[in-house]
Amino acid sequence: MAKRVAVLLAGCGVFDGSEIHEASAVLVHLSREGAQAEVYAPNTPQMHVVDHVKGQPTAEQRNVLVESARIARGNIKDLATLDVKGLDALIIPGGFGVAKNLSTWATQGKNCSVSKEVEAVLRAFHAAHKPIGLCCISPVLAAKIFPGCEVTVGHDTECEQWPYAKTAEAMKELGCRHVNSQVTEAHVDARNLLVSTSAFMCNAPIHQVHDGIGSMVREVLRLA
Amino acid sequence: MAKRVAVLLAGCGVFDGSEIHEASAVLVHLSREGAQAEVYAPNTPQMHVVDHVKGQPTAEQRNVLVESARIARGNIKDLATLDVKGLDALIIPGGFGVAKNLSTWATQGKNCSVSKEVEAVLRAFHAAHKPIGLCCISPVLAAKIFPGCEVTVGHDTECEQWPYAKTAEAMKELGCRHVNSQVTEAHVDARNLLVSTSAFMCNAPIHQVHDGIGSMVREVLRLA
Repeated sequence: MAKRVAVLLAGCGVFDGSEIHEASAVLVHLSREGAQAEVYAPNTPQMHVVDHVKGQPTAEQRNVLVESARIARGNIKDLATLDVKGLDALIIPGGFGVAKNLSTWATQGKNCSVSKEVEAVLRAFHAAHKPIGLCCISPVLAAKIFPGCEVTVGHDTECEQWPYAKTAEAMKELGCRHVNSQVTEAHVDARNLLVSTSAFMCNAPIHQVHDGIGSMVREVLRLA
Repeated sequence: MAKRVAVLLAGCGVFDGSEIHEASAVLVHLSREGAQAEVYAPNTPQMHVVDHVKGQPTAEQRNVLVESARIARGNIKDLATLDVKGLDALIIPGGFGVAKNLSTWATQGKNCSVSKEVEAVLRAFHAAHKPIGLCCISPVLAAKIFPGCEVTVGHDTECEQWPYAKTAEAMKELGCRHVNSQVTEAHVDARNLLVSTSAFMCNAPIHQVHDGIGSMVREVLRLA
């Protein structure tokens, strides 16, 4: 029986949704390992829409589920219908959508709230001892919900290669143990069954991000 | 010196733009081979916007360049600024956007027109003997512009695995030689320097589509 893995999206596009290449890499690696992906997204309005040429918000309104369906090629379900019973693992790709549509991290940092629906899903997988894969900014969800957990968002010292290193500091202030790692590596918190990789938190060539997500996906499936 | 490859997008999403996973695979494989991708899209309105949950058009209006920028993470240029002189190759991922925003194939089939801007770019690479990589539906552009060329869109007999095989028949009627191939293979037309792979014309697991695009990218770089 193929392992069934829920992939939770947050829109379509790095600045207001799921990071497209991270989401694609998750699906490619799950497929390569013979797992079955089931894509979900919340049926809620996006925090806002960003023009990805200008990097500026527009006046448009879009729905997280409808835009996520672009990545899922239409094969997507409302997060409200997710039942942890039939699933073996959960993976949440990164992108600002995680910090804008699944939580308020983008505007409130460590004082953010996680959407009730997303928190319930994370707690359900955690309580059922089913692994959760996180990449890029999505480990902040675990840092907020599972105090004392162990994750990576890459490095904790800012430099050209690690422009978002302050995220690691904010997670430490939440009581999380941050483990420095390279972009092609995944870190496993064996106690909490959390697997994380830095992805585009690192200013790295896209194939290294793809490979790091491959490491994360394989560890998630090993634990599932 | 890294080879510089123009990647021409047609929006963001399989039903009204570029197929996201094909575009991502092109960028991942170019990066892995040490080539430099430069992403372009036409600064024109989309033919329409499709709700990817319902599979139905909406009343929205979106711009091809602005939506393509989601895949390019903001690092994109207006196709009108493309200068073939500084570039070594061109790659056009698939998705309905090719048949809706770069040409009228979606509504007119073999009687379609190709947008003037896209036709000029294709002719410029061809005239300069620089290779062109095509996948999924995008070989129809070559079939229309370069009569007698040799491409693949997979298989020419419809079945569950090849639901869009009629495309091959339509291309043959344009005078093109269609070569049957598997999803992980790329076909090279050495005379015209065209490299094609079927991608999501095949009902195949996503990692096989990813690998077929890898074959296409490597052949393009070999010819560049």
